[in-house]
Amino acid sequence: MRVAMLSDMLTEVLIPVAAVVGIFFSLLQWYFVSKVKMSPEKQTRGAHDHGKNGYSDRLIEEEEGINDHNVVVKCAEIQSAISEGATSFLFTEYKYVGIFMVVFAILIFIFLGSVEGFSTKSQPCTYSKDRTCKPALANAIFSTLSFLLGAVTSIVSGFLGMKIATYANARTTLEARKGVGKAFIAAFRSGAVMGFLLAANGLLVLYIAINIFKLYYGDDWEGLFEAITGYGLGGSSMALFGRVGGGIYTKAADVGADLVGKVERNIPEDDPRNPAVIADNVGDNVGDIAGMGSDLFGSYAESSCAALVVASISSFGINHELTAMLYPLLISSMGIIVCLVTTLFATDLFEIKAVKEIEPALKRQLIISTALMTVGIAIVSFIALPSTFTIFNFGAQKAVKNWELFFCVAIGLWAGLVIGFVTEYYTSNAYSPVQDVADSCKTGAATNVIFGLALGYKSVIIPIFAIAVSIFVSFSFAAMYGIAVAALGMLSTIATGLAIDAYGPISDNAGGIAEMAGMSHRIRERTDALDAAGNTTAAIGKGFAIGSAALVSLALFGAFVSRAAISTVDVLTPKVFIGLIIGAMLPYWFSAMTMKSVGSAALEMVQEVRRQFNSIPGLMEGSAKPDYATCVKISTDASIKEMIPPGALVMLTPLVVGTFFGVETLSGVLAGSLVSGVQIAISASNTGGAWDNAKKYIEAGASDQARSLGPKGSDAHKAAVIGDTIGDPLKDTSGPSLNILIKLMAVESLVFAPFFATHGGLLFKIFWNGK
Amino acid sequence: MRVAMLSDMLTEVLIPVAAVVGIFFSLLQWYFVSKVKMSPEKQTRGAHDHGKNGYSDRLIEEEEGINDHNVVVKCAEIQSAISEGATSFLFTEYKYVGIFMVVFAILIFIFLGSVEGFSTKSQPCTYSKDRTCKPALANAIFSTLSFLLGAVTSIVSGFLGMKIATYANARTTLEARKGVGKAFIAAFRSGAVMGFLLAANGLLVLYIAINIFKLYYGDDWEGLFEAITGYGLGGSSMALFGRVGGGIYTKAADVGADLVGKVERNIPEDDPRNPAVIADNVGDNVGDIAGMGSDLFGSYAESSCAALVVASISSFGINHELTAMLYPLLISSMGIIVCLVTTLFATDLFEIKAVKEIEPALKRQLIISTALMTVGIAIVSFIALPSTFTIFNFGAQKAVKNWELFFCVAIGLWAGLVIGFVTEYYTSNAYSPVQDVADSCKTGAATNVIFGLALGYKSVIIPIFAIAVSIFVSFSFAAMYGIAVAALGMLSTIATGLAIDAYGPISDNAGGIAEMAGMSHRIRERTDALDAAGNTTAAIGKGFAIGSAALVSLALFGAFVSRAAISTVDVLTPKVFIGLIIGAMLPYWFSAMTMKSVGSAALEMVQEVRRQFNSIPGLMEGSAKPDYATCVKISTDASIKEMIPPGALVMLTPLVVGTFFGVETLSGVLAGSLVSGVQIAISASNTGGAWDNAKKYIEAGASDQARSLGPKGSDAHKAAVIGDTIGDPLKDTSGPSLNILIKLMAVESLVFAPFFATHGGLLFKIFWNGK
Repeated sequence: MRVAMLSDMLTEVLIPVAAVVGIFFSLLQWYFVSKVKMSPEKQTRGAHDHGKNGYSDRLIEEEEGINDHNVVVKCAEIQSAISEGATSFLFTEYKYVGIFMVVFAILIFIFLGSVEGFSTKSQPCTYSKDRTCKPALANAIFSTLSFLLGAVTSIVSGFLGMKIATYANARTTLEARKGVGKAFIAAFRSGAVMGFLLAANGLLVLYIAINIFKLYYGDDWEGLFEAITGYGLGGSSMALFGRVGGGIYTKAADVGADLVGKVERNIPEDDPRNPAVIADNVGDNVGDIAGMGSDLFGSYAESSCAALVVASISSFGINHELTAMLYPLLISSMGIIVCLVTTLFATDLFEIKAVKEIEPALKRQLIISTALMTVGIAIVSFIALPSTFTIFNFGAQKAVKNWELFFCVAIGLWAGLVIGFVTEYYTSNAYSPVQDVADSCKTGAATNVIFGLALGYKSVIIPIFAIAVSIFVSFSFAAMYGIAVAALGMLSTIATGLAIDAYGPISDNAGGIAEMAGMSHRIRERTDALDAAGNTTAAIGKGFAIGSAALVSLALFGAFVSRAAISTVDVLTPKVFIGLIIGAMLPYWFSAMTMKSVGSAALEMVQEVRRQFNSIPGLMEGSAKPDYATCVKISTDASIKEMIPPGALVMLTPLVVGTFFGVETLSGVLAGSLVSGVQIAISASNTGGAWDNAKKYIEAGASDQARSLGPKGSDAHKAAVIGDTIGDPLKDTSGPSLNILIKLMAVESLVFAPFFATHGGLLFKIFWNGK
Repeated sequence: MRVAMLSDMLTEVLIPVAAVVGIFFSLLQWYFVSKVKMSPEKQTRGAHDHGKNGYSDRLIEEEEGINDHNVVVKCAEIQSAISEGATSFLFTEYKYVGIFMVVFAILIFIFLGSVEGFSTKSQPCTYSKDRTCKPALANAIFSTLSFLLGAVTSIVSGFLGMKIATYANARTTLEARKGVGKAFIAAFRSGAVMGFLLAANGLLVLYIAINIFKLYYGDDWEGLFEAITGYGLGGSSMALFGRVGGGIYTKAADVGADLVGKVERNIPEDDPRNPAVIADNVGDNVGDIAGMGSDLFGSYAESSCAALVVASISSFGINHELTAMLYPLLISSMGIIVCLVTTLFATDLFEIKAVKEIEPALKRQLIISTALMTVGIAIVSFIALPSTFTIFNFGAQKAVKNWELFFCVAIGLWAGLVIGFVTEYYTSNAYSPVQDVADSCKTGAATNVIFGLALGYKSVIIPIFAIAVSIFVSFSFAAMYGIAVAALGMLSTIATGLAIDAYGPISDNAGGIAEMAGMSHRIRERTDALDAAGNTTAAIGKGFAIGSAALVSLALFGAFVSRAAISTVDVLTPKVFIGLIIGAMLPYWFSAMTMKSVGSAALEMVQEVRRQFNSIPGLMEGSAKPDYATCVKISTDASIKEMIPPGALVMLTPLVVGTFFGVETLSGVLAGSLVSGVQIAISASNTGGAWDNAKKYIEAGASDQARSLGPKGSDAHKAAVIGDTIGDPLKDTSGPSLNILIKLMAVESLVFAPFFATHGGLLFKIFWNGK
């Protein structure tokens, strides 16, 4: 059998249908969440009359006074303050990033247009010189368009995620009055809205773009999919600013609020008297939600583009086999359906009754989605692919069988699960690593930091082996295409992954709102339990993001090398080696910038918070309201100002290196930043997660050891708070931004490859005659 | 002119003469130091009667009671306790390492002997197949011998350094009674003893070994210099254990002593009531002195071996041009003479009168030695090299001119100076980076740590560019030989570098002895000033060690690739790429181990110190003596036990990877660990140095800003102490050990290359038929 079982016609139908199903499912979840009313009149018995949760007929023990109208009104007020702050920040961010995007779009057009001197004549194709492809000018125009399309989709993904999160946070708080299960479902459903919206949206836009571009490109698939790579670049550029800007915002507010509130004034977290408390809660939404959404959308778009561009020069593209060509999109379509089924396990099939069931429920989501998806991948691989075909492998065509491609995708998927579980082991306080870190707080903050750093370093080992094995297997089977689809495999359950991920900050916000609205201690305990599980799942989400980023970058790197017509990247040539060592340095440079930014912004915040405590009479007593808006403004201004230098470093490096030093040095830079960045990213986010949970472990006091270290306010707890504060910028700013650094430099190099290959390496051309 | 001006006969004379001059000069310095009498009877006016310092006739203002016999007796007692502790630790360490060395020597013999099945027949040479070389068995025997020779030389270097340091520390204290200039000279002379002894010793042993091996090898220079590479392996293996063991020892004691003494009991550093104080002072001598000595000896031996092995297959070796062949040794000989002249500037030509002159005096040493050495390199290059010659370049011969080789060596030398100055900028509290870190202590330990980490990351940028430029230039001129001699250039002023380096711990110890002997506050101020300058110079020394390690490793890597007969190391092959990413992970694994070791050992120490404070009556009041010996034993036992896993990781990785995965994957591992390790090493040691000096900046209170943060015991100072404690294992254990990790894996691969090339890659052979 040399052709796929699935007809091209059916493929053209199935992909948009899956996307639409995903969007519909997402809206349905939104509808369920919206049933929790925020207006006091209808609240009394509004939400659980309808039986949508499957167990609403049971009466939930309600505390006294929970139907107090004032509490609901207060929650609604706080929610709208958070939502307004987040919206206003994102609009400010988009304004600045928008200017950048326009400038960069013009750059793309000029650079790519200049490859053939803006000629409108058709050219020989890059890979098969005997065929004719559309002119370089068309590539310039369509790359620019797809770049803008990617950027806009990324913005929409992040923005909608933020909207639902700020819509859901207070609703989760209100549901917590009815029980931990209800609150869990509210938070998880809201996360699912974001997950499905983003996955389906990304798929649909990509699908439509391909079909529209095809109107012009016709049979020139090579040109078509080269132009489509701009989609990945647009998505990731936006993600960079989202992650860095959002990361600085959230951590400046968090660190600033904690340093004065918890350490100096000894008031609890999220206390409404703290002027930075609204900024802190806004930060969760713009950093962890909008930033994470843009980031994972970027990974998804890039791995699809990397796979498509390699496929277009393999037998799929050469023989115009549409179904096989769209294999990456079919995998994503299957992923949406699988995640849909998986979600039902959390929201309808099982029921959470106690706090200790939360973490297993979330872990079960990962396992179920991975198991189902393995079957899904098998189905897609066997019906969408011919039994044998060839894949482009640096100039040659390599024969590949469909079951080999199944293994490539599956190994990526399972490597993701391994990374997820290792991350959980190192960051959850149910296991010894975090408990050891907590224990080291006995001798003070210094040993806590030493043990935490050592834990982060150690947590790198297994994920790196998992990534290495995935790379080796998928490359051995199907060269760079194998790596691209392995990345896609890791991201195929993105809807579930994002649902779990977004659940964390929503719960965090819910807790904050409970505290600020002055709700009872028991509500706070429930939201804290949701939040603690969220810390671990956030770390797992970051693990996925980093693992997939490593695979995606390598796939993009491979596509870049092919497109730039380099046959080997030999470490033993000085051009490559200097690239390698400088590339390995870039994550440090970038981290130095982002951490310093958080530090400086936090210092500004500290001064403002201190000023308010000192100058507003009655603030500490709770009789006067703090000036939240100034703190929101400080975070906004600082993050907008501070995101530019690290952003410029990442965006300009490939351009400068490619233009002045040429494609070999650029290859070295990409490889170096990849292998070095992935380590720092994993260790930074796990160290931060471990410190956070070591602190929570002491606070919860659930074991003899924990009780011997606590309670809140003990010396050991103070040491743990210091660790947690240090971890904040590591785990939420510099660590997760590094994924984007490595992906973005790779996809940018890929898009600009024709320019670098033609006009690059100026310095060597001038001084060494191209030696 | 096709031949060198310098005759072979003269070369054979000049090298040993330079070495002997170095040894003589070193003994002369020792003699001057020994003039400071430790016995009270002769002390009264003993030391400065003779006018050897050039200004002893001037009367130095003496405080009251400095000739108190009790003080001198007490100093002598403390000195002998430190010396005994250090000697006993080193002997214990050598006993364990000795066993390892014997086992490893047997391994080398078996592995290399098995290449040709222990045959005694001559073989075709590796590079020129038409010529006959000595059998693989001879290579096995002589490699084993040179391995043992390197290990023994390294042990002797470290041990002698420790001996002179523990001989000089109390003498420096006594000299401090007479003035800061006298004390400076005593400490610096003692450092010079170590520097010259080590440089001259390394050169002499290498020279003798070459001449003895030549008796057997005759004209087979390829075989001869391949066997000589064992010398580098021996030196570095020993250095690994010295650095790691010594590093754990010193920091367990230091952290343990500080955590209880400074933080809990609020007694000053080096207070004799602290039970860990002797262990802490012993640690400086076994870690910073013996460890550093072994480390730099290893770098020196390896860069010489890397240069020699490449030269032996270039025109020098092929045409048997002895003078040109021994160019690396001639550079080192010139280095000894240049350093000798440089030393006179510090000890005899200038005179230190005030505290603020110390740091400039040390910096002047670096600048003078670099300037003189540039001339020295020019002289050696023009008289020892033919005007044109060819250098082996991965299978081809590359034509090189003598002035090009001059540039290779000189650029290494100057890159070292650049790295030194950048390190100084980031770690000295005279500049804004450290002052910013100190300032961030205002908001507590967390911001201090965030700013410190960011500083370390940032400090990587310029050194990496300096290394990259050196690599590019030296490789472009003379391939891997260029890089080897660039490393040699950076190390050519090793005698001065080590003198400056050893000066630091000696001053540190001198301060400790002053405190313990109960000497006046003014003495302590003087030794503190010496010590603060020593912190910066220690960081500079580490910068040199790391920079040279990067170049050395690359040169060794190049030699390994040549010897293993690989023509390219292509990042785009999965075998190489997985090596690259796992190699980049190894420094994290290694750091996790060493930091955790320090943490655990420190916790043990803390418990013992607490126990003594609680159970020995009158200890806090000073009426009872603590039990120093138990603390010394804890540090000794912990470091011996804990040095084994990281040591095994480094020593076994090349063997396991080479044997099971083959030379391509091993190449990837070497490149990955090199580019990733060098960044962590630089950032760790600079972060640690910056925290240490930020603390000292607050303590000294020399500016308005500093006074606003202080005094000792203020909240900001407490935050600074936490940073300093975290920095200890970073800057003195894991950071500097990473140099050795990257060098050692490279030299080990080089030595075992024939085995890996013949029998390696078992896994691929079994499962993928060598694919």
